[in-house]
Amino acid sequence: MRDFSNDTSQLALNTATLGHNLDGHGAGWPVERVINACAERGIGGIVFWRREVGSRAVEIGARARAAGLRVDGLCRTPFLTGPLALPSRQQIMDDFRSSIDMAADLGAPILTIVTGGVEPGTKGAGPSLDLVTDRVAEVAPYAAERGVSLALEPLNPVYGGNRSCLTTVRDALDICDRIGAPNLGVAVDVYHVWWDTELSMQLRRAGPERLLGYHLCDWLADTRDVLLDRGMMGDGVADLRGLRAAMEGAGYGGPCEVEIFSADNWWKRDPDEVLDVMVERFRTAC
Amino acid sequence: MRDFSNDTSQLALNTATLGHNLDGHGAGWPVERVINACAERGIGGIVFWRREVGSRAVEIGARARAAGLRVDGLCRTPFLTGPLALPSRQQIMDDFRSSIDMAADLGAPILTIVTGGVEPGTKGAGPSLDLVTDRVAEVAPYAAERGVSLALEPLNPVYGGNRSCLTTVRDALDICDRIGAPNLGVAVDVYHVWWDTELSMQLRRAGPERLLGYHLCDWLADTRDVLLDRGMMGDGVADLRGLRAAMEGAGYGGPCEVEIFSADNWWKRDPDEVLDVMVERFRTAC
Repeated sequence: MRDFSNDTSQLALNTATLGHNLDGHGAGWPVERVINACAERGIGGIVFWRREVGSRAVEIGARARAAGLRVDGLCRTPFLTGPLALPSRQQIMDDFRSSIDMAADLGAPILTIVTGGVEPGTKGAGPSLDLVTDRVAEVAPYAAERGVSLALEPLNPVYGGNRSCLTTVRDALDICDRIGAPNLGVAVDVYHVWWDTELSMQLRRAGPERLLGYHLCDWLADTRDVLLDRGMMGDGVADLRGLRAAMEGAGYGGPCEVEIFSADNWWKRDPDEVLDVMVERFRTAC
Repeated sequence: MRDFSNDTSQLALNTATLGHNLDGHGAGWPVERVINACAERGIGGIVFWRREVGSRAVEIGARARAAGLRVDGLCRTPFLTGPLALPSRQQIMDDFRSSIDMAADLGAPILTIVTGGVEPGTKGAGPSLDLVTDRVAEVAPYAAERGVSLALEPLNPVYGGNRSCLTTVRDALDICDRIGAPNLGVAVDVYHVWWDTELSMQLRRAGPERLLGYHLCDWLADTRDVLLDRGMMGDGVADLRGLRAAMEGAGYGGPCEVEIFSADNWWKRDPDEVLDVMVERFRTAC
């Protein structure tokens, strides 16, 4: 297992941790200031959201690299299914391709897929997972052309209805198996999978080529809001050491991306404090 | 698959559906009125909560049977682990035995176990599942003496931190395998497991002897509160027909218990209306 007690090169900031700096939450720092604050602390990578990037993908990617950061990824595709997806298949697929273009322009090697929930008019996860499979299979070659890998991110089953019919690493790998694209894999977020006792086995099944991301936060025992009450590493009940050991035991050697949605706690704090605590916890609690 | 379109003999009311009639929610109907309202509609069974029964277990059980109802179960054991459990091991085990006594006095063949969450001072589900296993193994013989079967109920992973380290039928069966008690099995609640794509396989693994209960409600796509916003059958995204087919395909032939926690909707309605809708949906949507 890698020793991160004095090494933050594999630590990455997902900008959601600062409350989506550009959309009115949090301190409202511009992207440049976030990039510099990461670089000053030796944080190795950064992951942006589309809403922050807008039409500035090439510029922002270059600026991050000039500051010494990797751009480790982009959040995220549109929902591909479910009640929150765009109205038409054509709109969904067009926006899916746009998100790939943005990742390519940014120089982000990984684009995260959040599948969307249960397709209206259907019941259970199965038919929606089939739809997701079809839509990802259709777009994966285009992503490959643009040098972008697609990371299916299973979300906690509490989001199964509206945000993600994909709820386990097992199901994500089943989709990967069905599609068989070399640029398709899985993003593993501790918030979503910490409870899954077969996770280690599924990670070994995935193997290093399909493990495309590892997202850190913590599951608070007394979670008050399933969207916006994530914990800082060490403050919850997830076995963060065990989870990272399982990832690395399966061959993962990539970045550890901190993604904390926390409307009532971390998003209300000074971003400098949040980044300092994040670095400290990465060294001591992960 | 059984045809329930004109048969409510296997329908059971879990009294939570009426807002825990005796604890200040809902209409405040006394137990006797609930029993009569079920009997009048041809509902075959009823499941009580300990708080409603108090010291009247023998009397209430007899009254239900006199009205023509089965008492199909009792909710529930105390939490065996986690932040919401009683302070000491002794208190937990004493209350566990008391809940068995109440089930026996009531004439309820099944007592539901809700395990409790992650034990303070530990991380991940594993150590808490071990604790649950030890505690259930210790008490199972006493339950057998009293003629009570124990049904481990996995809860949705959203409750993993505080209410149930047990989140899948797979893990419940692993505990059953480890303990090997003939009066230990699993209760399957569609709210908690609807998203699990390996459910059918795990139900076949369980077999009829270990499938001790089947709980109905629905998962609303836009669930606003994970404790108290359950849907009526047909109003959500769970594949209720498919789930019952999987249960029965695995040999289940017992009751279907409707358990709907719904503070802002069903609990605010006239209990007579709730029961009427429940019967109709059982016939048409399950």
